[in-house]
Amino acid sequence: MIDNRMHKTESASNGVERTIIRDLPKSIGKQVEIRGWVSVRRDHGKLIFLDIRDRSGEVQVVVTPKESAALETAKQLRAQWVVCIEGTVKERPENMRTDTLCGMLEVSALNIEVLSAAHELPFELDAEVNIDTHFDYLPLTLRTEKSRDIFTLQATIVEAYRASLRAMEFTEFQAPSLVGGDAEGGAAAFKVDYYYDTTAFLATSPQFYKQIMVGPFERAFTVAKVFRGEKHATTRHLSELTCVDFEMGFIKDHRDPMGVLERAIHDVVQTVKENHPDIFARFKVDVPLIPSSIPILKLREAHKILGVPEMPDMEPEHERQICEWAKKEHKSDFVFITDFPTASRAFYTYEDPADAPYSRSFDLLFRGLEINSGSQRIHDHAMLVERMRSRGLDPEKYSFYLQAFKYGLPPHGGSSTGVERITARMLELPNVKEASAFPRDLNRIDVRLSL
Amino acid sequence: MIDNRMHKTESASNGVERTIIRDLPKSIGKQVEIRGWVSVRRDHGKLIFLDIRDRSGEVQVVVTPKESAALETAKQLRAQWVVCIEGTVKERPENMRTDTLCGMLEVSALNIEVLSAAHELPFELDAEVNIDTHFDYLPLTLRTEKSRDIFTLQATIVEAYRASLRAMEFTEFQAPSLVGGDAEGGAAAFKVDYYYDTTAFLATSPQFYKQIMVGPFERAFTVAKVFRGEKHATTRHLSELTCVDFEMGFIKDHRDPMGVLERAIHDVVQTVKENHPDIFARFKVDVPLIPSSIPILKLREAHKILGVPEMPDMEPEHERQICEWAKKEHKSDFVFITDFPTASRAFYTYEDPADAPYSRSFDLLFRGLEINSGSQRIHDHAMLVERMRSRGLDPEKYSFYLQAFKYGLPPHGGSSTGVERITARMLELPNVKEASAFPRDLNRIDVRLSL
Repeated sequence: MIDNRMHKTESASNGVERTIIRDLPKSIGKQVEIRGWVSVRRDHGKLIFLDIRDRSGEVQVVVTPKESAALETAKQLRAQWVVCIEGTVKERPENMRTDTLCGMLEVSALNIEVLSAAHELPFELDAEVNIDTHFDYLPLTLRTEKSRDIFTLQATIVEAYRASLRAMEFTEFQAPSLVGGDAEGGAAAFKVDYYYDTTAFLATSPQFYKQIMVGPFERAFTVAKVFRGEKHATTRHLSELTCVDFEMGFIKDHRDPMGVLERAIHDVVQTVKENHPDIFARFKVDVPLIPSSIPILKLREAHKILGVPEMPDMEPEHERQICEWAKKEHKSDFVFITDFPTASRAFYTYEDPADAPYSRSFDLLFRGLEINSGSQRIHDHAMLVERMRSRGLDPEKYSFYLQAFKYGLPPHGGSSTGVERITARMLELPNVKEASAFPRDLNRIDVRLSL
Repeated sequence: MIDNRMHKTESASNGVERTIIRDLPKSIGKQVEIRGWVSVRRDHGKLIFLDIRDRSGEVQVVVTPKESAALETAKQLRAQWVVCIEGTVKERPENMRTDTLCGMLEVSALNIEVLSAAHELPFELDAEVNIDTHFDYLPLTLRTEKSRDIFTLQATIVEAYRASLRAMEFTEFQAPSLVGGDAEGGAAAFKVDYYYDTTAFLATSPQFYKQIMVGPFERAFTVAKVFRGEKHATTRHLSELTCVDFEMGFIKDHRDPMGVLERAIHDVVQTVKENHPDIFARFKVDVPLIPSSIPILKLREAHKILGVPEMPDMEPEHERQICEWAKKEHKSDFVFITDFPTASRAFYTYEDPADAPYSRSFDLLFRGLEINSGSQRIHDHAMLVERMRSRGLDPEKYSFYLQAFKYGLPPHGGSSTGVERITARMLELPNVKEASAFPRDLNRIDVRLSL
């Protein structure tokens, strides 16, 4: 239905249509107008070379003394200046060609207009800077090829995940961020000053709302922000993060949502593989290995394989080790860990009646890190109220949520994937904060907080 | 790439594959298993009729004395009980057929299993209840056909909008909800208790972040939550709302983002028209009228047409009147109002140098309501700092944002569409809160706040 017609959204200034850089190879010998940022300026005295970047790619522009006005302008240009250049597209001599998008051509400038001058940069844009400097200068450092790659890939991951869920008949909804209480009854929720001296909280999960949405839609998902106020200062935690959460009714057990998740992850991996081989190449990282069936281990089996005593959860170091095992034994960068003890999971987790005290729960690990957590949920109202009481939670405080169960909810389950975590592991970034465009943590909201 | 294979995600219990109701016409004469909610039970003494709903549709089940166990179970059933029914799909006699999806058939029950019993409902689900009761019981009332229609349509609107922007080469990003200061310097932002006694705020707009994203991506968009703490108690305001925000570089003026917006709205209207004629029919509402070019009026022209004195903004009543005019004169449910006085717009709005004190700004009105607001933005660092000072804003407090301009940003602009507002006007809902699945306002976060 929606065709590709981005060119028609380019405005013409002085009657000349802008050509985006990706399309230059179609314009050899022609006069064009390009617009973009100066990435690099190389002053060879009589000649000046410019690398110009727009949203579609980069091209070399050569400015010769023949066009003296253009050369005068080119002398002033510095990195990140924004320009509009009229010029002629010329093939480069065979021996000067490079292997890039526009490596066989260059634009010979006829006229250069400065659209926006930049101040001197605090550091060269491609310089390796420490992570705090990177974050201090995000409006600049997000322009690096590395950052553009990370967030281009992230946009593809999110869209492929949504498309996969839509194809499986999940309906998208907008889960609220402002909530009346701390949903999970445990995670540290940020407090919000609401109206008339009332206190609200920021959602630590869209869990309750997606369960409620099983009622109208049976299968529902949301891409939601969640907020975690724990005082974690690790490479795995963010204070604000994005999750893709789905929930589905009429399941037999946790294996059904695991199947949906497996299919969605397959679709995501396939899509990034098809669309972004260049990004994986630049990061020198392999496209994730994913067999048709992701290996599944019960938690106790994982501990046995690792030769450690049974524990209620996976230690980060054990997550890394079991992923190495899965890669070696099953050629998989993903592994499911299932059947956690009920006591170590959220209150709504369904206990396996045939295998108590273990639950119908799962985590999905990817290259050493938990990126997803899910389970079958309790669907019986009385059982859920009883479970709340046994955890010291007051069902009265959950009366809104409990209506979903009071008025009939089928056996259901689902899972939650951290968008920054899956992005980070996809490109093997050491710190999940690098996969958040504007990371918030203990010490930072854009600028460092003074403590 | 992603094919439609929802059926394979249905688990089989006792070896029988579930059939979704939409597919029953393909199973005439066959034995099937369906799962869903009891919408209605009609007890005719010897016979019991059940209307069963799943995510794909509704079907009539007949339970006869021949299957006495099924009949005993059927007698206990009430609205919203969740069941799994085995039965035979039979054609109805010609004179008993209805015009619905499964109106030519019924399922003759062989066995009924109760998956979840519901308590007695507080009111009949299709009863007209007042809006506060509707909100008090959302986990139940979201199951009405009306609510399912609203949020099915909303999911389509959001996805069609995103698809349109992707086709125009916009890159999606995740804008943060937690911000360090009140972005617009005017709107009432909610305060958040952040770490170590610092205060954060909830974003009133993703504006600064999408402008920053013009640097790396030139064209960027986000579907974001925004939070407004004004003490408005109207049918037009929410305290938490969803917006689709885009921003694009290398524009000539505000007409470029208006062109992108027009195309996106065209795509949205076309998509809902193709996918949801049934929803428009049930709401007795026409698909929106949208001519190939949406009419454009300068604010002062609009006031002139209405025969009122020139004012700095549109009054709600004037928005309604000018929309009536656009419908009558241009057969359009949409109308652009442009060239607002600079002083009545956000500080970053670009003043038209040839027409000061008016600005390159626009609102899009839809069936009497502003659903979108946008403009060309100031891209020059010095001019922006100067504008901040003239508005009494301290540029030091905006140093993170200002980097985007300091390091070279092209002429750019964009706009923001309220998802709940466009949904509400699409179906002519009187209150925008009805288009929020879980509305937050002065008096409510799920439950009514005690004041």
